[in-house]
Amino acid sequence: MLPIQDELQAVEVRLRAAMTIEFEPLAQVLAALMQSGGKRIRPALAILASKFHSADADKVYTLAVAVELVHAATLIHDDLIDKSALRRGSPTINSRWSGTATVLAGDFLMARAADIAASIENFRLMRIFAQTLMTICVGEIRQDFGKDLPPNQDEYYQHIDSKTATLFSACTEGGAVLSGAPENEIQALKAYGHHLGMAFQIADDILDFTADENKLGKPVGSDLRQGTFTLPVFYFIAQDARGVKIADLARGNGQDGAEMDALIDSIRRSPAIDAAKNEARRFARLAQDALAIFPDTEHRRALHDLATYVVERSL
Amino acid sequence: MLPIQDELQAVEVRLRAAMTIEFEPLAQVLAALMQSGGKRIRPALAILASKFHSADADKVYTLAVAVELVHAATLIHDDLIDKSALRRGSPTINSRWSGTATVLAGDFLMARAADIAASIENFRLMRIFAQTLMTICVGEIRQDFGKDLPPNQDEYYQHIDSKTATLFSACTEGGAVLSGAPENEIQALKAYGHHLGMAFQIADDILDFTADENKLGKPVGSDLRQGTFTLPVFYFIAQDARGVKIADLARGNGQDGAEMDALIDSIRRSPAIDAAKNEARRFARLAQDALAIFPDTEHRRALHDLATYVVERSL
Repeated sequence: MLPIQDELQAVEVRLRAAMTIEFEPLAQVLAALMQSGGKRIRPALAILASKFHSADADKVYTLAVAVELVHAATLIHDDLIDKSALRRGSPTINSRWSGTATVLAGDFLMARAADIAASIENFRLMRIFAQTLMTICVGEIRQDFGKDLPPNQDEYYQHIDSKTATLFSACTEGGAVLSGAPENEIQALKAYGHHLGMAFQIADDILDFTADENKLGKPVGSDLRQGTFTLPVFYFIAQDARGVKIADLARGNGQDGAEMDALIDSIRRSPAIDAAKNEARRFARLAQDALAIFPDTEHRRALHDLATYVVERSL
Repeated sequence: MLPIQDELQAVEVRLRAAMTIEFEPLAQVLAALMQSGGKRIRPALAILASKFHSADADKVYTLAVAVELVHAATLIHDDLIDKSALRRGSPTINSRWSGTATVLAGDFLMARAADIAASIENFRLMRIFAQTLMTICVGEIRQDFGKDLPPNQDEYYQHIDSKTATLFSACTEGGAVLSGAPENEIQALKAYGHHLGMAFQIADDILDFTADENKLGKPVGSDLRQGTFTLPVFYFIAQDARGVKIADLARGNGQDGAEMDALIDSIRRSPAIDAAKNEARRFARLAQDALAIFPDTEHRRALHDLATYVVERSL
């Protein structure tokens, strides 16, 4: 339990207000998306990172709302790019709307996030924010372009950086900036956010293989079924004699449902899962190391424990 | 010839720099889009609106670049929504890329525009900018949703407002804000931009029927062929006894190429064209009226003449 429950509740109220829009169809899908929950880990990061100095709480909550909106926008775009039918057990926007309308719904959230971020009236924060949006966009375009190219482990790291770590580090850097922290602390919290984001996404990609299907709200191995190669797959291919054949299979060349099910089961039972988890733990430790310069407060401990949590969670 | 040619040249240099991006496929399509030209009317508006007081030229040029990038982003999205194959005689991005990648290319430009706008370090301008992006997004979503609904003249006005007039007024309001103009002048220039944008878009929609096909770079009547109803069509339907039947026809129910060609020819030769032009002239006069509070300088005259130009131009 994070030592900022009341503050996260204040963010929740503002998040609902941020979904207000007079165009009813859009208002409905956005409200549904927000109500379906989520861990609000990005708002928590922004708040915790602001705690080492005295920050204007109102501005920190505003940042927390803005980053969660960006996150929601990327979920909308990701589901479209991955053609996912379900998100947290509910139908995705792309399963109900045209592709164009779906992307524009995400765009609207990004624009609203930019407006909310601008209302904080902090120039440095605004730049961090806009540059994060650019990085996310370019990452999504690369992903869309890369669909038909051979999978590549370096690109996987680049992809999870632009998809997840960039926004995590914007949360912690932004929170630190709003608290008036000195530059070395801003950089330390930015680095913490980056490493935490890498750990979080690798853990997420492992859970796609290992989590309970009911909790996932979608079939196990969805990433691979959609032709997305994540770290467990790269590790599995590296140690498996059938390597190239598996790559062919996973790219949709001639597999039927049973073959894919068997492959996913093989990966789930292989040492690749533990190897990927160790890589996630390595990033979590890098995140924790970045906290060394801060005093031992409850908020530093919360950030430290969060790094353990994101890797060890069961969803 | 506007009295700001050197300044527009400075903007052009910065526009090319703003297209820099390390992801080669994206860099290529954006460079092609920018090189294909355009009237740079939005940069001109930002510059002219800043001329009634002393503005930091560097900030005004930066605003000019940001608004032109937003414009380019909306062209990318519009071409996708309209399924246009050609823009200024060149293949559109959507004719070469997937729908998702195309929208994301537009998103990237919007994010870069937001970053460039943030670099101006003016809070009010940043809010104007972010809110303009939201209005444009919602307008695009409405358009995508409205495709299968009966055409509606009120929605046409709402659509050209969000599509064109909002950005025009952001240019003039932004230029005025950067010049340190008093509030009444900011509001006057904002109103000028809005009315000019309405006039501009109506004129554009007329030109889709009346312009030379070679100059248009696409078939005459493209809007209607794609099921988009513009002011000349509404006026034509209102005065034509076949009204409902034409609406059916234009929505793609059973027309063949020859029928559509004949319909477009009928509209082009009808009084609906002049009626629409008079409506555009009405908006142009409202724009000119908004300039009344300013002294009679060359820049006010340029803005005045621009309102005449946007309505009377042959493309």
